[in-house]
Amino acid sequence: MRRQNLALVMTTVAAHGPLSRAAIAGRTGLTRAAVSSLVEELNTAGLLTELGSLPSGRAGRPGRALALSERGPAGLGLEVGVGHLGACVVDLRGEVRGWLRVAADNRNRPADEVLAELATVSRRAVTEAEGTGLRPVAAVLAVPGLVGEAPGTVATAPNLGWRDVAASGLCAQGLPLEVENEANLGALAELWHGTGTSDFIHVSAAEGIGAALVVGGRLFRGARGFAGELGHVPLCPDGPVCACGARGCLEQYAGEEAVLRQAGLAAGEDAVRRLASRAREGDRCALAALERAGEALGTALAGAVNLVDPEAVVLGGAYAELGDWLLPGMRRELTARALRRWPPKALLVSGLGRRGPLLGAGMAAIRRIIEDPAELTVSRSRR
Amino acid sequence: MRRQNLALVMTTVAAHGPLSRAAIAGRTGLTRAAVSSLVEELNTAGLLTELGSLPSGRAGRPGRALALSERGPAGLGLEVGVGHLGACVVDLRGEVRGWLRVAADNRNRPADEVLAELATVSRRAVTEAEGTGLRPVAAVLAVPGLVGEAPGTVATAPNLGWRDVAASGLCAQGLPLEVENEANLGALAELWHGTGTSDFIHVSAAEGIGAALVVGGRLFRGARGFAGELGHVPLCPDGPVCACGARGCLEQYAGEEAVLRQAGLAAGEDAVRRLASRAREGDRCALAALERAGEALGTALAGAVNLVDPEAVVLGGAYAELGDWLLPGMRRELTARALRRWPPKALLVSGLGRRGPLLGAGMAAIRRIIEDPAELTVSRSRR
Repeated sequence: MRRQNLALVMTTVAAHGPLSRAAIAGRTGLTRAAVSSLVEELNTAGLLTELGSLPSGRAGRPGRALALSERGPAGLGLEVGVGHLGACVVDLRGEVRGWLRVAADNRNRPADEVLAELATVSRRAVTEAEGTGLRPVAAVLAVPGLVGEAPGTVATAPNLGWRDVAASGLCAQGLPLEVENEANLGALAELWHGTGTSDFIHVSAAEGIGAALVVGGRLFRGARGFAGELGHVPLCPDGPVCACGARGCLEQYAGEEAVLRQAGLAAGEDAVRRLASRAREGDRCALAALERAGEALGTALAGAVNLVDPEAVVLGGAYAELGDWLLPGMRRELTARALRRWPPKALLVSGLGRRGPLLGAGMAAIRRIIEDPAELTVSRSRR
Repeated sequence: MRRQNLALVMTTVAAHGPLSRAAIAGRTGLTRAAVSSLVEELNTAGLLTELGSLPSGRAGRPGRALALSERGPAGLGLEVGVGHLGACVVDLRGEVRGWLRVAADNRNRPADEVLAELATVSRRAVTEAEGTGLRPVAAVLAVPGLVGEAPGTVATAPNLGWRDVAASGLCAQGLPLEVENEANLGALAELWHGTGTSDFIHVSAAEGIGAALVVGGRLFRGARGFAGELGHVPLCPDGPVCACGARGCLEQYAGEEAVLRQAGLAAGEDAVRRLASRAREGDRCALAALERAGEALGTALAGAVNLVDPEAVVLGGAYAELGDWLLPGMRRELTARALRRWPPKALLVSGLGRRGPLLGAGMAAIRRIIEDPAELTVSRSRR
């Protein structure tokens, strides 16, 4: 019960703070005495901080405002991409306080080597954050693959060549690590830091196509956690064979690899940037490839829209940088094929772009702390 | 508050009854005194009934068991199909106590004429049920179209030629009428009376293709209530023009009309039965049409499965009668295209078949009573 109440106070301050103790009591239905005791525990753990006095609006002693702490406990976001590694530190208020992203060719490289290099990147980001008074207490790792059943494991990440990889050794001893799919984290970053809609399909591209559904402000995971595989929606039933074994999947028309191939460009960390600059220069091959990809995305998304009826479609990840050329085809197909009228403003480009998954990982780590602060208070003191 | 508690007692008895007053108190957390008062009110309204004594398991007076009443308040289900009209009466326990379905050619017939004939059908079903002590107190109408914003209205039903039709005059004065899409009601019937899964895509066929998503035991309506339009998922982007204006929608390959055309059969109320008997006789044209439809359904459903990851796909409505011939192609495509392994038992045929929407309408009407019984007690006595 106390554990739930600690979480209630934290989530209330996170959503509506700064708040006085009286205001917290009013919003939560807890007694003033209970709030005082809970707040003290959260203050001691460094999760809340007292700001100056707030006008109380009544006679008597003004209440002191409580806010999420900008020092102390923080979230650590980590990312393994096919062409890069990343680490970030996010404070409890959701502000990015350390950010490091380095190029690395991780395709078919031994997983332990990749994780060892990520650990180095992570230590640098953490050291930097420690200099500003932060201390990561929970970590989330973004991977381009499916999460394993055991905590801290990756079941499969085809573009990395990973199968049943345990990432649990990645963090300093005792720091809890969660693994999550990068497309899901990109969508959550958009939900928490983005355009304001809470019912959307988020489409991004890494090697394949990553997509995630957010419904009523929550990730829609499906009955067994496999929802969101837009890249393997059939676009042409008899089309080219896909890596998944089926024919004509969307990925074969609008996946990064397919688009680069059609544009005559080699893959690589900065391939999307090169593609964008070619398109900007008016290169016909590049423009045709992007036109075709936009149409393919729009067609598959129209089917998805007819099936799940979201408020919006958000183009994120590296694809956000290609919005100028992808959007016209996407919009045309959505307009022609969505049963419900599809207003232009319901197709958005994410402002987060390829920063999404890593930012989402850092934010997910602090959401974990905010939604169960007892991990850092009661239970810790009991050890 | 009393309104909520009345609903709590009703839903508890509906889910776990028969129950003694003590057992209701135990399950709801209400006091014995409160339960007694609420039960009395529900008994007076004819919503609950006292069965014989239940062994209490303790010393003292045995409790009398309370159950949903099999007499008195009942639900009225109504249906307008393209080729038929239907009415049913369902008692509070969910048992069908009156069932009437008549052939009628409703395509492009004036809506008021259709509704007048449905009113006649409805009166016959109600009269029959009244003879067994039932009295409909809420009605739900199943339509092959989109529900309007105003209660009791249909926004559009293309196959009927309806646009902005008010069905509110259909029922006896004072009987509340709700309109709902037939595919949604078919899926709800499956949820309440069916195969036991609570996360599934329900695919049926009337003229077009009706589909509905049930997620965690609830209808998934989408951000604006338009979810489930599987029939307008693009199957071949450059395929034949669909009634919706787009090209290559699934409906053009697997909709009833398309299948009948390919099999060389005329449309009509019993067309699906004729198609099934042709297939049973080994008619090549019929078998080829069904094979093609099964493959098209399987391909589009594989995309839907990759996107929303349900536990099962249920083939319902008239298509349930074609399961023998549709299932092999559906299963093949699902196996080849679903990213997650798709076990054969995750593709089911509904036992309700074309009875689904009307049964769902009757069940939805009683769910409405069970979830807000105060409509029949407190608020009624206040009038």
